[in-house]
Amino acid sequence: MSYARQLLDAYPGTLNAGAGVLVAAIDALSDCAQACIADADDDLREEDLAEMVTCIRLCWDCADVCTATLGVVSRQTARDTGVTRALLEACVAVCKSCGDECERHAPHHEHCRICEQACRRCEQACRELLGALT
Amino acid sequence: MSYARQLLDAYPGTLNAGAGVLVAAIDALSDCAQACIADADDDLREEDLAEMVTCIRLCWDCADVCTATLGVVSRQTARDTGVTRALLEACVAVCKSCGDECERHAPHHEHCRICEQACRRCEQACRELLGALT
Amino acid sequence: MSYARQLLDAYPGTLNAGAGVLVAAIDALSDCAQACIADADDDLREEDLAEMVTCIRLCWDCADVCTATLGVVSRQTARDTGVTRALLEACVAVCKSCGDECERHAPHHEHCRICEQACRRCEQACRELLGALT
Amino acid sequence: MSYARQLLDAYPGTLNAGAGVLVAAIDALSDCAQACIADADDDLREEDLAEMVTCIRLCWDCADVCTATLGVVSRQTARDTGVTRALLEACVAVCKSCGDECERHAPHHEHCRICEQACRRCEQACRELLGALT
Repeated sequence: MSYARQLLDAYPGTLNAGAGVLVAAIDALSDCAQACIADADDDLREEDLAEMVTCIRLCWDCADVCTATLGVVSRQTARDTGVTRALLEACVAVCKSCGDECERHAPHHEHCRICEQACRRCEQACRELLGALT
Repeated sequence: MSYARQLLDAYPGTLNAGAGVLVAAIDALSDCAQACIADADDDLREEDLAEMVTCIRLCWDCADVCTATLGVVSRQTARDTGVTRALLEACVAVCKSCGDECERHAPHHEHCRICEQACRRCEQACRELLGALT
Repeated sequence: MSYARQLLDAYPGTLNAGAGVLVAAIDALSDCAQACIADADDDLREEDLAEMVTCIRLCWDCADVCTATLGVVSRQTARDTGVTRALLEACVAVCKSCGDECERHAPHHEHCRICEQACRRCEQACRELLGALT
Repeated sequence: MSYARQLLDAYPGTLNAGAGVLVAAIDALSDCAQACIADADDDLREEDLAEMVTCIRLCWDCADVCTATLGVVSRQTARDTGVTRALLEACVAVCKSCGDECERHAPHHEHCRICEQACRRCEQACRELLGALT
């Protein structure tokens, strides 16, 4: 269990959105970054490696963007809502793209099926946070 | 809930350590990185900001090192155990240092009390993985 | 001198944009990420620390987003242009925001004057890459 | 040209080491992180992809560790020298390992030859900083 909820509850100021939607996004971003790192590594070990190149590349992008978004979304102090919004939109785009690519491999690679779930959940959580930013 | 366990179970090769100890480290690293980002942000909003400078700096270091270690530990393919070991040792050092600093502020800042927990758990999980690497 | 130009010249495929505009963006992103990390650290050491909170926060965001964008823009294989575009737009937004904040402090803090330069150059290089993506 | 030297000169406190050795390490870390990202991407596009798996993995590790080390080494305020030292040792280990692997492929892949240079220079710069930390 992450500490995100407890830390938001302890924040000595006003949150950028409701705590529930923030925690959902923070946990989904954190889990998606790790899933993409692990899925790219799983891909490297597959026999059909040449077929997995796009998946590896998009997983790498998705991990990088989720990690940056996790940082920006976790911080509540002195926010620039325009920046948060633009980054969440980029994160939605990469989660959608990576999720679609993982879906193509899901029937034959269990790790891609799991990573697709992580991407879909993260895309959805970022969309909900976009709608809830104050 | 993270996908770390499912993804390790789906890995098409030999793991670097038992799945249980790997999952514990992966989740602790992920949670500690986020807790440190959030705690540094909480510190920025405190009235005794000048007293929190060391805490902010160590939280930033701890977040950076945990994020890198999360990547290295999540990957199972073509590992270099010497590299993993050296990085886990650096991660133990920064979690110890950051946890100690947070402990100093825990009596008056709830967010530092929570971040200390995250650092202690991560330090312990990295130590256990160090003892279990094959 | 970075290796970006040599590595693009050695890439065994088609680049996402002209090598010149790619190299300019890669070097500007790399330099801006480092400048923001250093400027936030300089801020922590200033006597008017309470005035620097917004600068510290935006520098942290800018460093995180530039680091992610550096990764996505450096990779040429199996790109998703929509993702690259959305992320470059987020990077333009954060470089603009961080540059504006640094400009406010530039008259009394030399490090903010330098960091503003890094942000302005990076914003411009990302805009040019946005116009040159194929 | 990076802003590292100018920013260290503008730092309103005592540096962790001589400015020259700090700048050399900062620039080498930044360049090595980017070179490893680019080299792994180049590898993904090669026809002998199956032979490049170890190189891709070590480049990914090396990029992650260099990025974290860049952050820790760039910050001068409220340092923990034990942490810096442990992380520099991990960085030396991964640069050595990644440089050795790139060297194996240097005769047939120009991008690995370039990445090897970046790793060797970074390993050396980290060793020199280790010897110069105060």
